[in-house]
Amino acid sequence: MVIILKSNPNKKQLDNLLSWLKSMNLGIHMSEGANTTLIGLIGDTSGVDMELINALDIVETVKRIQEPYKNANRKFHPDSTVVDINGVKLGDGNFQIIAGPCSVESEEQICQVALAVKEAGATLYRGGAFKPRTSPYAFQGMREEGINLLLEAKKVSGLPIVTEVMDISHLPLFENVDVIQVGARNMQNFELLKELGTLKKPILLKRGLSSTLQEFLMSAEYIMAGGNNNVILCERGIRTFETSTRNTLDLASIPLLKSLTHLPVIVDPSHATGIARLVKPMALAAAACGADGLMIEVHNDPAHALCDGAQSLTPEAFKDVADAVKAILPYSFKGAK
Amino acid sequence: MVIILKSNPNKKQLDNLLSWLKSMNLGIHMSEGANTTLIGLIGDTSGVDMELINALDIVETVKRIQEPYKNANRKFHPDSTVVDINGVKLGDGNFQIIAGPCSVESEEQICQVALAVKEAGATLYRGGAFKPRTSPYAFQGMREEGINLLLEAKKVSGLPIVTEVMDISHLPLFENVDVIQVGARNMQNFELLKELGTLKKPILLKRGLSSTLQEFLMSAEYIMAGGNNNVILCERGIRTFETSTRNTLDLASIPLLKSLTHLPVIVDPSHATGIARLVKPMALAAAACGADGLMIEVHNDPAHALCDGAQSLTPEAFKDVADAVKAILPYSFKGAK
Amino acid sequence: MVIILKSNPNKKQLDNLLSWLKSMNLGIHMSEGANTTLIGLIGDTSGVDMELINALDIVETVKRIQEPYKNANRKFHPDSTVVDINGVKLGDGNFQIIAGPCSVESEEQICQVALAVKEAGATLYRGGAFKPRTSPYAFQGMREEGINLLLEAKKVSGLPIVTEVMDISHLPLFENVDVIQVGARNMQNFELLKELGTLKKPILLKRGLSSTLQEFLMSAEYIMAGGNNNVILCERGIRTFETSTRNTLDLASIPLLKSLTHLPVIVDPSHATGIARLVKPMALAAAACGADGLMIEVHNDPAHALCDGAQSLTPEAFKDVADAVKAILPYSFKGAK
Amino acid sequence: MVIILKSNPNKKQLDNLLSWLKSMNLGIHMSEGANTTLIGLIGDTSGVDMELINALDIVETVKRIQEPYKNANRKFHPDSTVVDINGVKLGDGNFQIIAGPCSVESEEQICQVALAVKEAGATLYRGGAFKPRTSPYAFQGMREEGINLLLEAKKVSGLPIVTEVMDISHLPLFENVDVIQVGARNMQNFELLKELGTLKKPILLKRGLSSTLQEFLMSAEYIMAGGNNNVILCERGIRTFETSTRNTLDLASIPLLKSLTHLPVIVDPSHATGIARLVKPMALAAAACGADGLMIEVHNDPAHALCDGAQSLTPEAFKDVADAVKAILPYSFKGAK
Repeated sequence: MVIILKSNPNKKQLDNLLSWLKSMNLGIHMSEGANTTLIGLIGDTSGVDMELINALDIVETVKRIQEPYKNANRKFHPDSTVVDINGVKLGDGNFQIIAGPCSVESEEQICQVALAVKEAGATLYRGGAFKPRTSPYAFQGMREEGINLLLEAKKVSGLPIVTEVMDISHLPLFENVDVIQVGARNMQNFELLKELGTLKKPILLKRGLSSTLQEFLMSAEYIMAGGNNNVILCERGIRTFETSTRNTLDLASIPLLKSLTHLPVIVDPSHATGIARLVKPMALAAAACGADGLMIEVHNDPAHALCDGAQSLTPEAFKDVADAVKAILPYSFKGAK
Repeated sequence: MVIILKSNPNKKQLDNLLSWLKSMNLGIHMSEGANTTLIGLIGDTSGVDMELINALDIVETVKRIQEPYKNANRKFHPDSTVVDINGVKLGDGNFQIIAGPCSVESEEQICQVALAVKEAGATLYRGGAFKPRTSPYAFQGMREEGINLLLEAKKVSGLPIVTEVMDISHLPLFENVDVIQVGARNMQNFELLKELGTLKKPILLKRGLSSTLQEFLMSAEYIMAGGNNNVILCERGIRTFETSTRNTLDLASIPLLKSLTHLPVIVDPSHATGIARLVKPMALAAAACGADGLMIEVHNDPAHALCDGAQSLTPEAFKDVADAVKAILPYSFKGAK
Repeated sequence: MVIILKSNPNKKQLDNLLSWLKSMNLGIHMSEGANTTLIGLIGDTSGVDMELINALDIVETVKRIQEPYKNANRKFHPDSTVVDINGVKLGDGNFQIIAGPCSVESEEQICQVALAVKEAGATLYRGGAFKPRTSPYAFQGMREEGINLLLEAKKVSGLPIVTEVMDISHLPLFENVDVIQVGARNMQNFELLKELGTLKKPILLKRGLSSTLQEFLMSAEYIMAGGNNNVILCERGIRTFETSTRNTLDLASIPLLKSLTHLPVIVDPSHATGIARLVKPMALAAAACGADGLMIEVHNDPAHALCDGAQSLTPEAFKDVADAVKAILPYSFKGAK
Repeated sequence: MVIILKSNPNKKQLDNLLSWLKSMNLGIHMSEGANTTLIGLIGDTSGVDMELINALDIVETVKRIQEPYKNANRKFHPDSTVVDINGVKLGDGNFQIIAGPCSVESEEQICQVALAVKEAGATLYRGGAFKPRTSPYAFQGMREEGINLLLEAKKVSGLPIVTEVMDISHLPLFENVDVIQVGARNMQNFELLKELGTLKKPILLKRGLSSTLQEFLMSAEYIMAGGNNNVILCERGIRTFETSTRNTLDLASIPLLKSLTHLPVIVDPSHATGIARLVKPMALAAAACGADGLMIEVHNDPAHALCDGAQSLTPEAFKDVADAVKAILPYSFKGAK
């Protein structure tokens, strides 16, 4: 970490700063130029509050030379991580498609869709049992029963299942779930992340609505710091001023994340755009720029036939997407490691 | 709720939509114009998924006529809510200042600052025991011990205390806390909100980093739907492209929120700007546009003398702010109800 | 256009609104429901100020049923536009790559790069003569002399040239330029757009830093309303909170724009990301989701060898990108029309 | 300027960088630490392209120690600027209110409102003759005739007038205008700014929709670099994800700008919020945090009686705002210089 001081820093404030830095067992390397003084910090700066230092009167700016994440950092782990999901490998060239309905609604629905998406090319199965909803009056998911139905669908289809957790207290229900998803709104639910760090199960971590890539990686670091390295990152769009899509899918984050971290990165074009007819072009674009997989909403419940145009595809439309993605993969970007 | 259809909607999709709407026990009022058809929904539409309908192929747009929040809505509760915090009233003309350090660090620190801010004009005391930190390697707060020290400070100073909860499982420790704070990152931790709805204790709900005002009110609604009406809203800045302040303080939200809801609304200029010298002008501006209170970071630990310029004020600087705020209050905006 | 009124609108205000609407020669279709009244407007509403109506006390919301752009609208012009640039066709399956240096610096430089990018696969040549710079003290481009050097490079290479205009008064200098570029900062310089509408020359219109897609299309409409239909849209990233790339490339805008308009849409991955190693993956992603072309910065001036890593590629690196793009094109998205 | 290099920079690239820096006549001060090398640049760095350097492979980060603006910088001009507008002083304790209608519509309208706002407390008069409109089909203003009517209103009322310019070629029409306004969409129309720098007339520069404060100051610097120091800055809201107000008024920018620059800073609450009932609270907040003036939309055209609730106030409502602002001014923030 390097601290650049303003010209002519107040002597007493500088002494205070230096003794505080020393109290944290950091080596200090001062370098005084013509009109600038720089303080280089040597040692473990991961606990140093950069924002606090940055706000000091005598400080012009402060900059980490090393990223604050270690376990997630590709510098220290050059080989790409492959996450093993009950035999399905994801990452480092192993491209997987997670598909399934937004919510678990009934045994018939959840099992039928499972078989349909498997047939169409999905290798992992998703469905929401606990649903984070903006309104307390909206359907909150089938919860425990929903998990049981997902396990039934897993039995029927043989596909490993992915489903979202919303609170630490529900974790015992997830014992037979293959991948635990952390939703965008919980990306900085640090107590939950710490708890997930104590498990060995793969965690699918979605990027927060207004999270920088560094914050995203720091949330992965929370899980990994507890000993669980099976983290899959998922770009799902960020919140911007543009309202013609639900969120703005930040695809440049894919090659950028893959250069910063060894963890696999997948893309959710369904939630990012909120528009079914954009799922295919965005799935192709995600594959083209090097994503390790996709997460796509698919339904086949006739009661939802009205949803044509919404973010969910039918199994037939999903097959078209999956086939196009498989065809484009050999020509996709492989360079950023 | 009004659904505006595209011209010449597909007949089968329209029938599907209408039968789905009827299955939710909603009255339907169709109105066909020259090149538009409108569907008015009558009844309780609070559980209807607007985003789903909006995404249908045959739908041009959908618009709620009534806000989706009821308990928080000023239309149904014209009188401003006054939250009673252990005898300290907040709201409807009762302006209060919450002050205190970012983190609880020691008994001496937390008790000294309590006495100092009380003397300077604070009527409620804040301090962080559980600290949400971006990095797993940063200090996570004194946790249970921190809460005990805060209760000690409460005894010494007589000021009711405000402190943040980070997980449902910690709630038993908050039994003697006067106001439970929900941080910006947990504004949409719906399971936590539901649990807080079962308490009778005042809840200080901070606006999420990228939350719209409607989402903010819906999170208050989660708490109120459970029966707890003692909710205080806190504007603390939103995330934008501007980096010269930590966040962008959205002060227009104050009069706007106060017209939409009867709940009290306070402002946290310390976290919003991250710059100590901006706390005074922003505190004055917040008071001027009708806020019901302020939340300000104050420290007096000599070890932090270096923090001049950071978001924390000394007790002396805080007194200057508190005095200026009291002087401006008689001239502030009173109109938006 | 449909205006949805609040319940129990003030009678006098409603009468005022209705007579004002009638004064604009609009047909009015009222529809009164149980607790809502709707006003449908029939006729040419393109001059109606929606924002003004939306802000009225008695109005709940107002919504256009028809987009406010006509000439740019695919509904009225279902066939994709092909822009002919001195024999080079762009759009509707004709994919072109514009390449060249950020600034014209010397005859040697601009001619050498032209030959190099042509060899590597570029079909159009770009170079900045007038440079919009944030600082008045930064190099403002070679201006008139720069245009002359570009015309020299055109002669040498045979590639049609694309260069940016910054003010109406410079237009006479652009007589032999093949495509006139409007930069992001001038996307809403309406007087300039009107002037460009009087020309027959192709216009490359870049999306503004914080422009919605509708605003982008309205700026194209300004040019087309004057009679010039040769407009090429260029997505170049929008400004968001994320700082790890210069802008956030909004690739979902490509298929969305192509469904809304018949105009060709290209992508500038160099300016969008500001990072050379992201140009290749983003060029591939842009091609995959259906873009009609790319605009890529390339230099070969040895004085800039230091720029490895900046947004400019060497001709060799550009060839690698161009080859990869050509290989992926047959597998790209063709569906959104 | 300080350049922080990555550890173990490529020797050849470093040599290239150093010789390029030397070619710009900059003094170089190298400082090598344990795992970092810093390059301090001495001399006039205002023409150095920071973004280019930042993007180099061997560079970790680059930071200006001195702001890139000089004429606008308070460091070099500690005394606050007072702009003299035909005898009306603005800045350094001289608080002024600019009021008037959005557009000039007729002689009667423009003269009546002028007298009404003068009576109510306005000291400067505004009205739009050239109107930047998103749609080419919307009313574009009365243009030359509008300016003439404004000059008539000036004669009648004695108030100096403020009106917006949209293109260099219109400037001759502005000869008798007292303050030339540059709209948000033209904040980075650099050719226009340069031209305004050659005048002596006061310029009211509005902040761009997505401009950082530094970009805002650099645009002021463009005008001042030409010799015109009579620049008034105007905060008018920035574009964010929040849609409940038209823009997000960034009031923290007021004290921050006033510490960075000696130029006066005013606030436009009408355009920022787009909601008439928010004009009063935001005007009070702006005054409270130290703004030097306000710009408020007022109409009295009976044809617009329907506009209650829109961003325009009646003269009576404006008088209420002006009186409240005058009452709060003695208690406002005076500290940031």
